Amino acid sequence: MTNTQPAPAPENSAQDLPTLKVAVLGAGTVGTEVLRLITEQGDDLAHRIGGRLEVIGVAVRDMARDRGPHVDPSLLTDDPSALVREADLVIELMGGIEPARSLILQAMEHGAAVVPANKALLAQDGATLYEAADRHGVDLSFEAAVAGAIPLVRPVRESLAGDRIDRVMGIVNGTTNYVLDAMARTGASFDDALATAQQLGYAEADPTADVEGHDAAAKAAILASLAFHSRVSLADVHCEGITSVSSQDIAAAERMGRTIKLLSIVERVPGQDGERISARVYPALISSEHPLASVSEAFNAVFIEADAAGSLMFYGQGAGGAPTASAVLGDVVSAARQRLRGGAGLRESHYAALEQIPLEQLRSAFYVSLRVQDRPGVLAEIAGTLSSHGISISTIHQQLIEEDEDGSASGQGSAHIGITTHRALESSMTAVLDVFSSTSTVLGVDSVLRIEGE
Amino acid sequence: MTNTQPAPAPENSAQDLPTLKVAVLGAGTVGTEVLRLITEQGDDLAHRIGGRLEVIGVAVRDMARDRGPHVDPSLLTDDPSALVREADLVIELMGGIEPARSLILQAMEHGAAVVPANKALLAQDGATLYEAADRHGVDLSFEAAVAGAIPLVRPVRESLAGDRIDRVMGIVNGTTNYVLDAMARTGASFDDALATAQQLGYAEADPTADVEGHDAAAKAAILASLAFHSRVSLADVHCEGITSVSSQDIAAAERMGRTIKLLSIVERVPGQDGERISARVYPALISSEHPLASVSEAFNAVFIEADAAGSLMFYGQGAGGAPTASAVLGDVVSAARQRLRGGAGLRESHYAALEQIPLEQLRSAFYVSLRVQDRPGVLAEIAGTLSSHGISISTIHQQLIEEDEDGSASGQGSAHIGITTHRALESSMTAVLDVFSSTSTVLGVDSVLRIEGE
Repeated sequence: MTNTQPAPAPENSAQDLPTLKVAVLGAGTVGTEVLRLITEQGDDLAHRIGGRLEVIGVAVRDMARDRGPHVDPSLLTDDPSALVREADLVIELMGGIEPARSLILQAMEHGAAVVPANKALLAQDGATLYEAADRHGVDLSFEAAVAGAIPLVRPVRESLAGDRIDRVMGIVNGTTNYVLDAMARTGASFDDALATAQQLGYAEADPTADVEGHDAAAKAAILASLAFHSRVSLADVHCEGITSVSSQDIAAAERMGRTIKLLSIVERVPGQDGERISARVYPALISSEHPLASVSEAFNAVFIEADAAGSLMFYGQGAGGAPTASAVLGDVVSAARQRLRGGAGLRESHYAALEQIPLEQLRSAFYVSLRVQDRPGVLAEIAGTLSSHGISISTIHQQLIEEDEDGSASGQGSAHIGITTHRALESSMTAVLDVFSSTSTVLGVDSVLRIEGE
Repeated sequence: MTNTQPAPAPENSAQDLPTLKVAVLGAGTVGTEVLRLITEQGDDLAHRIGGRLEVIGVAVRDMARDRGPHVDPSLLTDDPSALVREADLVIELMGGIEPARSLILQAMEHGAAVVPANKALLAQDGATLYEAADRHGVDLSFEAAVAGAIPLVRPVRESLAGDRIDRVMGIVNGTTNYVLDAMARTGASFDDALATAQQLGYAEADPTADVEGHDAAAKAAILASLAFHSRVSLADVHCEGITSVSSQDIAAAERMGRTIKLLSIVERVPGQDGERISARVYPALISSEHPLASVSEAFNAVFIEADAAGSLMFYGQGAGGAPTASAVLGDVVSAARQRLRGGAGLRESHYAALEQIPLEQLRSAFYVSLRVQDRPGVLAEIAGTLSSHGISISTIHQQLIEEDEDGSASGQGSAHIGITTHRALESSMTAVLDVFSSTSTVLGVDSVLRIEGE
């Protein structure tokens, strides 16, 4: 604390306040930061809560490992089950499905409020947790599970609770944004950019969950559930990662005044059969003028469109020990205030129970990159195929391929064609790609990317 | 409601839910939108709250005026005092100090939660309201009082309650941003840009509260109170408006790669005598690369820097009927949930009681525009004056003035000099300006603006 002034005590001294027993499950990067903040800002937190946080135990798998100066070794335990039964408030930072889920359920059964930073569990089986929280009258809050330090869960769940959210679109995975940003800045290939990200600690040794979009999809499921008052789980989210984004795609995007970002999109889709919702994750082209285009490195940013509020944007650090700990502690302070006043303040609702619209029925604008035979009539044939499936072309860009790139092309030359389309049904594009794969005119489909935010 | 699907009812039907009596004070633009949303989204809100909102009355001054289709004339009353005594929840949209304050206090005394969108009252006498809310155990929430639809009060008050906020800097007044943006885009003078803003409805007929910075200062007082857990009122905020910003200043800023914005800044200032806080509003130069520089028209955007969370940005519509109504209803839903579970969920704390640092003791970088005699030695003299007061120059830009602009300058020519400085004490700059005003070398000081965000 840098406040060295004598603090006048207009409220009770922090020493006289009631105590809340806190259990911390997990002592990795985030856990260590949470414990640091609880120690260093103990008096401040006590005043803000109206009660003191007392950490009664830190559950870890490896009791022997040194956890640095902020983790009191005497608090370590390898019996999380016993720990949560004693706690008023449980901070779950273990990740994964089990034993996290069982421990959270146990904690709630014993009346504890729970703050999990566990997107996988919330996305896969949020319903079980919400129902248990409701049944036991305890708070379940998870700001840290989506977009790290950025207040996003609370704004969606509370600030916009009186509004109608139509769409949430954002960059919620820092690793993939770092990789795509590096590819755009340096011209590097995906593999090289990923390797650099790993060296710098922006990507894990096994980057699958990030680069395949699973992490972003989990966050989309959580956001869709909250925004649309419906149950949306990970399995409902259409998910494409960035592993097939090439440096050619990035260059083509730039030539078109666009940027490629991995977007999580959840939205209401009106239709004749009533309103449905869509939750999806894929790399997409957005205009370089779009505010999301300038989100660099590992930062996150999210747009929300709501009926009355209009467009809102939130920007900040989506990961990292300290930012995630900030989000956790915000929830801890709220939950602790509630505990002291009795009862829970939050309420999950899934009354709307909106159905998912299958991806095939959505309409998107596309960018398609083809390798084609370089002969008269090819463009007309391709345009005809698109047109016969109801897809209208917005722009076409053609480029001859140098010899050494495509030595196999039976005597005659070949060319790259980059096409952007107006909005068309996903199923129509699928049908067109089927035709392309069976015609000799098209030598290969290099990329199919959607265009968003226009 | 566009959701035309048969709604499965996994929770209670909205009809069976308990009812909360809502009083609305004021039926202007925001009030009308609030009433529209409560009507149109009644079932949705009931599910989210777990109770139905029943508007029991709308207090207005002029009972005869037509208020459009969303305001049921049978609900109108000119006796707000009787109305608030019957309510569980009071939405105060009257503005001004009295009778708003007395009515809010009466409402709390009768146990009602209160949602005021009244920045003036909160900035001037927030302490009285906070204390009454605490004494009566009711919620006092006011998201709509700062930056309209942008969730800002809740993130500062709750999401970041476990963190240490160091600085909040933002554009929180749409009118002045519209005017400055128009001046930058079109080269218009302040008066012309303001007249256009008035024609388009972005500025009021009497624009004083906006252009003099009072509105932004009220918001700064509210944000500083929440961010620093101290009592900061309007009188504590140093406030300069934009009326003296000239098109020459805008052009000079652009030449330097900067933009002029009216900024509200609240921050912690460490020092030998302990930590103090500063709350201030003034037009300042920021780099055109800074995210706040690209906030156009009447939009608002706010940066928050916190110890653990790092930098966060929030962007959206800071005013208007529907956006403000969205913010009001978010608070209404939270307060209503709390009412139904008993008690209040929020807690105001001013335990830190940090002192204000006087402006003179702050350090800022400056842009100073002078008219000087055009003769050898002038630059050296000015640089010497700055240097002798401990102010070091960053850049100097000199420009001859055309004859007709300055016919009065006794025979010899005159020049404009634009100087930017490194960070220096405000009191030193004041002393330098005193010297300039008494020397014959300096014919006039055209502008003194601070440079922020670097």
